[in-house]
Amino acid sequence: MTKSRVEAFTDGVIAILITILVLDLHAPTATSWAALGELGEPFFAYVVSFIAIAIYWNNHHHLYQTVKKINGAVLWANTALLFWLSLLPFATAWVGEHLTAFLPELVYAVISLMCGLTYNLLNRCLVSVNGPQSSVAVISRHDRKRWLSLLIYLIGCILTLLWPLAGLGASLVVSVLWFIPNQRVEQEFK
Amino acid sequence: MTKSRVEAFTDGVIAILITILVLDLHAPTATSWAALGELGEPFFAYVVSFIAIAIYWNNHHHLYQTVKKINGAVLWANTALLFWLSLLPFATAWVGEHLTAFLPELVYAVISLMCGLTYNLLNRCLVSVNGPQSSVAVISRHDRKRWLSLLIYLIGCILTLLWPLAGLGASLVVSVLWFIPNQRVEQEFK
Amino acid sequence: MTKSRVEAFTDGVIAILITILVLDLHAPTATSWAALGELGEPFFAYVVSFIAIAIYWNNHHHLYQTVKKINGAVLWANTALLFWLSLLPFATAWVGEHLTAFLPELVYAVISLMCGLTYNLLNRCLVSVNGPQSSVAVISRHDRKRWLSLLIYLIGCILTLLWPLAGLGASLVVSVLWFIPNQRVEQEFK
Amino acid sequence: MTKSRVEAFTDGVIAILITILVLDLHAPTATSWAALGELGEPFFAYVVSFIAIAIYWNNHHHLYQTVKKINGAVLWANTALLFWLSLLPFATAWVGEHLTAFLPELVYAVISLMCGLTYNLLNRCLVSVNGPQSSVAVISRHDRKRWLSLLIYLIGCILTLLWPLAGLGASLVVSVLWFIPNQRVEQEFK
Repeated sequence: MTKSRVEAFTDGVIAILITILVLDLHAPTATSWAALGELGEPFFAYVVSFIAIAIYWNNHHHLYQTVKKINGAVLWANTALLFWLSLLPFATAWVGEHLTAFLPELVYAVISLMCGLTYNLLNRCLVSVNGPQSSVAVISRHDRKRWLSLLIYLIGCILTLLWPLAGLGASLVVSVLWFIPNQRVEQEFK
Repeated sequence: MTKSRVEAFTDGVIAILITILVLDLHAPTATSWAALGELGEPFFAYVVSFIAIAIYWNNHHHLYQTVKKINGAVLWANTALLFWLSLLPFATAWVGEHLTAFLPELVYAVISLMCGLTYNLLNRCLVSVNGPQSSVAVISRHDRKRWLSLLIYLIGCILTLLWPLAGLGASLVVSVLWFIPNQRVEQEFK
Repeated sequence: MTKSRVEAFTDGVIAILITILVLDLHAPTATSWAALGELGEPFFAYVVSFIAIAIYWNNHHHLYQTVKKINGAVLWANTALLFWLSLLPFATAWVGEHLTAFLPELVYAVISLMCGLTYNLLNRCLVSVNGPQSSVAVISRHDRKRWLSLLIYLIGCILTLLWPLAGLGASLVVSVLWFIPNQRVEQEFK
Repeated sequence: MTKSRVEAFTDGVIAILITILVLDLHAPTATSWAALGELGEPFFAYVVSFIAIAIYWNNHHHLYQTVKKINGAVLWANTALLFWLSLLPFATAWVGEHLTAFLPELVYAVISLMCGLTYNLLNRCLVSVNGPQSSVAVISRHDRKRWLSLLIYLIGCILTLLWPLAGLGASLVVSVLWFIPNQRVEQEFK
């Protein structure tokens, strides 16, 4: 099975997801600074989600670079990742309207956690099909960032009970963590 | 004629279809569990359609892998499939708002059936242009799943008269049936 | 300059245009046959535009197959074609709500005419850069269908004064004309 | 690292951005010339943004043609450019409704300036990773158009205080400036 069409399809879906985020940034009816200011909270949620999706694309790009083989399980793990990513525009629109409300932030944090879990599942499927000696397996072996991300998302879910903004906050912290792509991948390809 | 641009265009349309489904999942105005609960039915319809479209992409991917030649008839059968798939977001939005109403479920079931029929038509056109000795012909010969799917969609259409949910139900049953891609294709490419 | 990225960008834009057409097919609030029936006119406009855009993609696909070189003029003619195609979802939404009104049909007909004109411009630019001995020049030389299409669009514009439906009608007639792709192209590539 | 997936992802995002612009061109409820005339201002803003985004795609296309290597910094500069471009549909919708209002025009001008700045940043990152002897460095060395564009955007921002239309105006002037792609790139590839 060829990986190029999976990459192309994933690129397509992620490109559309990152772009339709902006559809929930409605143009104000007035033209005052106050009207623009009301967009502050939706805009903050927009920026957080834009960066999160960009990082998933970036990591997906790096992950597949090292991949030789894919199979049906990889295809389904990839689809599961896309499913949870596809819910981010919905969660972003909701949380952007209610930045300090518990439930929208919890939903955002849970969807973020599910994206992280399905990304890990995808990584595991790719390692499994390519074997323990493959590049993707070697690079993934000591990759603590993925487990740390899941932990941060989980803490974000729990913290929303006390401090709702922890939902978006957890996503931001993970983004900072992933901002620099895996050095091991880049070195492998030098 | 090259198949790669047809694949790319189909990937593009399917990627957009699967993504704009989420545009009908509107963020609630309130932030209560009750407000979130009201999204239960649209979300169920969303999941069913997401899986259905993902499976069409998956099968399309597998089908074209075995293909050597395409012609004008293939292009039009492919367009007909995309046309019926393009109506799924509309049907999903309607059925999601009225999960137990007869007419939305019937419309959903009929559109599902038409997607299945045009997929079969596309398969037949590909076999016809590649000849009876081609990989695509050999793999398609004993493929009873395609005919079973059409039967399930048809039964779904009829059952909506008694039990409206049969519309989405038929789509779910077919998805389970197709969840594992055709083993013959994978073996052929080992 | 490579033609592949122009093809990919054009495929992307056309795939999105053909897909967002469906966003104007709003799910009815009721679940009666009468409510569904009210979608008849928007649906008719949807089908006409879907076929028209599919044919533009199809012809664009065939046209570029024969092309060896592109330049800046080709890029701009291609962009002009995409600009006029991008207005079709707007015109389709308007005409679908007012199927027998003069102005929406005239606007639809004029946009159709502009799509046809810019497609001809693109064809001419491709012939010019590839030279009179190129495949694209040979195939284009006796291609009366392109001029006939422009004439039909123009007649459509004028006829809307007497019979508004001529706007969508002209598009349908041209679609029938183009349904079978240029035989010369297929023969050239046998 | 391969540049082709970055190109594909960028093409996808830009294709979607240029297409969803049209979603803010709402079909009028009436069918009179007056109703159509009210679309004049949103349509003008639509045309200006369509051309601006088309030029960014065009220049991005030319820029990457000369590129051999990319790295993480290029990926992030590319993402920053896409972020600012992704705000153009929002700004276009707002400015289209209030063509002569100060704040929407200022926001449009500032977003245009940020697009220009991130494009320059991307160019600089590409030069840095490919080295001073690379094609991209040679072509970029004497490219005064990029700096002139930034100056025009900046003047546009300031002029909106006196003459609001300077926001869209600056974008139009820059578009005229870039209409003809960099001659040096084309010559390099002859």
